[in-house]
Amino acid sequence: MDEVPGSVGTSASFALRLGQTLFSSASLLFMSVGVDFYGYTAFCYLVTIMGLVIPWSFTLALVDGYSVLVKCPLRQPGIMAIIVVGDWVLSILTLAAACSTSSVVDLLLHSNEPCPSKFCSRYQISATMAFFSWFLSLASSLFNLWLLPSL
Amino acid sequence: MDEVPGSVGTSASFALRLGQTLFSSASLLFMSVGVDFYGYTAFCYLVTIMGLVIPWSFTLALVDGYSVLVKCPLRQPGIMAIIVVGDWVLSILTLAAACSTSSVVDLLLHSNEPCPSKFCSRYQISATMAFFSWFLSLASSLFNLWLLPSL
Repeated sequence: MDEVPGSVGTSASFALRLGQTLFSSASLLFMSVGVDFYGYTAFCYLVTIMGLVIPWSFTLALVDGYSVLVKCPLRQPGIMAIIVVGDWVLSILTLAAACSTSSVVDLLLHSNEPCPSKFCSRYQISATMAFFSWFLSLASSLFNLWLLPSL
Repeated sequence: MDEVPGSVGTSASFALRLGQTLFSSASLLFMSVGVDFYGYTAFCYLVTIMGLVIPWSFTLALVDGYSVLVKCPLRQPGIMAIIVVGDWVLSILTLAAACSTSSVVDLLLHSNEPCPSKFCSRYQISATMAFFSWFLSLASSLFNLWLLPSL
């Protein structure tokens, strides 16, 4: 059985999951603390999706950390398939949320009554963090998909 | 060699490609004819991406139609890999464009000065068509990815 760097149970996967958790937490915090995000559908959607991504990535980070410590990677096809599909769905949803948020921010910046620059820069940072989280999530998903046929 | 329904050179793939071409052309037409789309970044992005998807899908529809007629499917790993990667990238870009467009339309519908209902309904139809096109493009990409390891 090959060892694919970045697949479940390796230290690279642990780093990817930790990055996803950090970026999605940052996106959630920048969007929700002190900003009236609930006035816009796209921002509510981003907050919802980040609330799904954070527990998913954090749980898998714990699993990876444990696998690295006991040197016994998880290699059951059923569980791997669930992880691949979950990653896939969440990465699509994260991309959708990031794109929606950034297009709304762009519209707000160029509208007739521009939003206060403090708010808009926070929205922008939040969208950027969501894009980073999407990128890491896509990488995890691809690495695990690569491993799947060899199980 | 397995015959995966929906992979390059089958009649199912021809139907998928034809659907992509139709939906993306409809999305482009609803967005660009008689509507001032160039005032919004997200709408310009949608038009650009649809302008990429239409020739790509149309070319592959021609290839599939030819393969079905001469009963000699295309099965070269290099070309298949290019098709899978191209489908993948275009489906991500289409999803991004569809999400951006729909979130901007939602914002326009709920803003203080709502857009004329004729324009907004056209934007909505265009975004819906882009989502359909994304879905078919994802299906093509998954079917071809499934075939790739067996080549």
